Amino acid sequence: MTEEAPLYDGSSERRAPADQATVRRTNLGLVLRHLRDHGPRSRARIAQETGLNKATVSSLVAELAERRLVSAGEVDRAGSVGRPGLIVHLDGRCVCGIGVELNVDYVAVLVLDLRGEVLFERRHALDIPSLGAEETLDAVARAVTEAVAAAAVVGARPAGVTVAVAGLVRSVDGVVTLAPNIGWRDVAVLDGLRSRLDVDCPIRVENDANLLAIAEWAMGSEARTPDLVYLTGEVGVGGGVIVAGRLLRGAGGLSGEVGHTSLGDPDVVCGCGRRGCWETVVGLAALLRAAADHGDPVRDPGRDLETRLAEVARRAEAGDERTLGALRQVGTSLGTGAAVLINLFNPRVVLLGGYFAVLGRFLMEPLLAELESRVLGPGMAGARVVLSRLGFTAAVRGGAHVALESVFDDPTLVPEPVLDPAGATAP
Amino acid sequence: MTEEAPLYDGSSERRAPADQATVRRTNLGLVLRHLRDHGPRSRARIAQETGLNKATVSSLVAELAERRLVSAGEVDRAGSVGRPGLIVHLDGRCVCGIGVELNVDYVAVLVLDLRGEVLFERRHALDIPSLGAEETLDAVARAVTEAVAAAAVVGARPAGVTVAVAGLVRSVDGVVTLAPNIGWRDVAVLDGLRSRLDVDCPIRVENDANLLAIAEWAMGSEARTPDLVYLTGEVGVGGGVIVAGRLLRGAGGLSGEVGHTSLGDPDVVCGCGRRGCWETVVGLAALLRAAADHGDPVRDPGRDLETRLAEVARRAEAGDERTLGALRQVGTSLGTGAAVLINLFNPRVVLLGGYFAVLGRFLMEPLLAELESRVLGPGMAGARVVLSRLGFTAAVRGGAHVALESVFDDPTLVPEPVLDPAGATAP
Repeated sequence: MTEEAPLYDGSSERRAPADQATVRRTNLGLVLRHLRDHGPRSRARIAQETGLNKATVSSLVAELAERRLVSAGEVDRAGSVGRPGLIVHLDGRCVCGIGVELNVDYVAVLVLDLRGEVLFERRHALDIPSLGAEETLDAVARAVTEAVAAAAVVGARPAGVTVAVAGLVRSVDGVVTLAPNIGWRDVAVLDGLRSRLDVDCPIRVENDANLLAIAEWAMGSEARTPDLVYLTGEVGVGGGVIVAGRLLRGAGGLSGEVGHTSLGDPDVVCGCGRRGCWETVVGLAALLRAAADHGDPVRDPGRDLETRLAEVARRAEAGDERTLGALRQVGTSLGTGAAVLINLFNPRVVLLGGYFAVLGRFLMEPLLAELESRVLGPGMAGARVVLSRLGFTAAVRGGAHVALESVFDDPTLVPEPVLDPAGATAP
Repeated sequence: MTEEAPLYDGSSERRAPADQATVRRTNLGLVLRHLRDHGPRSRARIAQETGLNKATVSSLVAELAERRLVSAGEVDRAGSVGRPGLIVHLDGRCVCGIGVELNVDYVAVLVLDLRGEVLFERRHALDIPSLGAEETLDAVARAVTEAVAAAAVVGARPAGVTVAVAGLVRSVDGVVTLAPNIGWRDVAVLDGLRSRLDVDCPIRVENDANLLAIAEWAMGSEARTPDLVYLTGEVGVGGGVIVAGRLLRGAGGLSGEVGHTSLGDPDVVCGCGRRGCWETVVGLAALLRAAADHGDPVRDPGRDLETRLAEVARRAEAGDERTLGALRQVGTSLGTGAAVLINLFNPRVVLLGGYFAVLGRFLMEPLLAELESRVLGPGMAGARVVLSRLGFTAAVRGGAHVALESVFDDPTLVPEPVLDPAGATAP
């Protein structure tokens, strides 16, 4: 009998027949990811660690070098008995991923090279609710064009552009179905950007919480946790879920909508028009309403959010009863909803982002108490609650990462340079 | 630009290097599943439809025939131009899958051959709450041994045994953490059966709703719907979720616990000791309490459930106001919870099983009204609600299917028969 029976995943009939080209692509990706995850090393060591044979590794590395995804540098003398080998490392310069975040009052762009180094970063202040969709998309297209040009200066071509939007995004066709905080409904962001942009790479549009979850998965403190639930607290509350190492998308890319589940106060009307949505008790507005009177600067949306949250934290630290009471109340309600997510998804980690992360130290105690009492599995079903440390650029980082990941999945997406008769490399 | 950008799944780094043995196994499985899904056909047609070349298909079919998973029968003359080929078909006789269901008052066993035909079926009445875990496992082991013997009579060896339990099952190690309806806590079902059974195949222990979801996925009216939520209404309420064609398991196999999410009446105490669990408003007890007084035969747990549900349906059809009111109330509450699941998972289909299916025609109207108002995505985010038609043997069918699926995934799990010197096939 087998100690650990292979778990059924019901997906077997979807596999394509394996052929030599598929095997080659798989192994090119394997070597490239191995270098990313474990750092520069010799061909011999790659062979030893991946189980591929040495001749295969040499041929794979040669192809990756032709595509300018790796280069071979100094000689490896560490512990070598035979002929010393050259160290192969990721060459991040020729390809980049572009992440864009479209939020209430700004558009942010970040360009990462294949090694994850920042090539370009820009934040444009923009009043999106007043601008409207068409002018906003014009601005986004200009911002992306600027980023592409900046990357081209150092020789990097985009492998993809990923746009994060806080709202209900039908990622299969890139339509923002509903984004109450910017007043959008059924905006075809993907088509709008395609018609405005002259780039030869995939463009994706994605819910911001999904990209935040991916950023955590790729580069957060709990990176590579295969079962992970991410909750971000802002005006609204968003959720992104990683299931068995994959982003949960659902049939139309509309999954993870936790903010409007009926876990709130049935007497309170939400921004979406419904009653009892969870974000009416755990969103930023709910906290600030409970913590301060109308007219209090922490409730002034015209002021900088980070400053207002710092003031809330200051009051809590000073022992202000009203502030502490409001935080306890939000912490408990956060626990009620997080317990539902733990019961449904059985994650290893629940990550809290947005204002939940900033004020997390005051939310944690009531939150954990509620989880202990509401989660069915013993010991909170093995879940830990962790505050995100990625901060406010996480969405664009997640977006850039998604764009780059396609190259790590299939390095042949990056074309081999065409040589002109004089032997110079064409652009 | 690509019309449909490949969706990021974050799982790339887990892939093993592809080698010839892997390719062979993949392609053996591909041919076997092709025959299962599309019926008997010639080698030439398999080659044409799968994209594998003809010589490869011939060699794969020869190996599958040696493992006695396929056989070649009559000549294919349909539309053939060249030499007519023999028709290859699944030969289900040598391998079987065993599904077991362990419920409050019975143990059921079902054996399916590779073609999905029933080889053996038995239901043993058993008062599990009074028997206790050890004696119950003795009885389960006897039932499985009987099934294995029955399969052996026709020459079939088990590819696996899957045991369904209504409760919180940690499928990674086969421990039933909590099963309130049979009074179990931390029962090591997998270890208990391994020590009692003399079978040389994997044994799995699984939450019953997970197996019901798999049964629907494999053989229900909505088979192969990649994003599917299954809800079963019994004494408790269980959930099984298929995400992108895979069963959602979570970190410890504890996912899908919908019954105890806090979507119920906070004043009602649940069987688990908590307040406000969803099953306190949508479980069978909630319906019957609302529909009939204490002492009414429909509330008598000693009577057959199907008879009691038929009586409830009769009263509803006769226009009994109290019964109709109870059904409306349950339908609405079912909608509240189903809306949460649709918001989180964005499934294509929500399948209702157990008593929800039997009385579904009376629940549907209030349920859909609640979904329309609570689901954030327009048009219920594209989800349909469907009543299961698999009936009461679905859990054992799902279990047997899981066991067989491992063979379709990797046909080399079935050994090639060893020939003795006289040329006869050893057992």
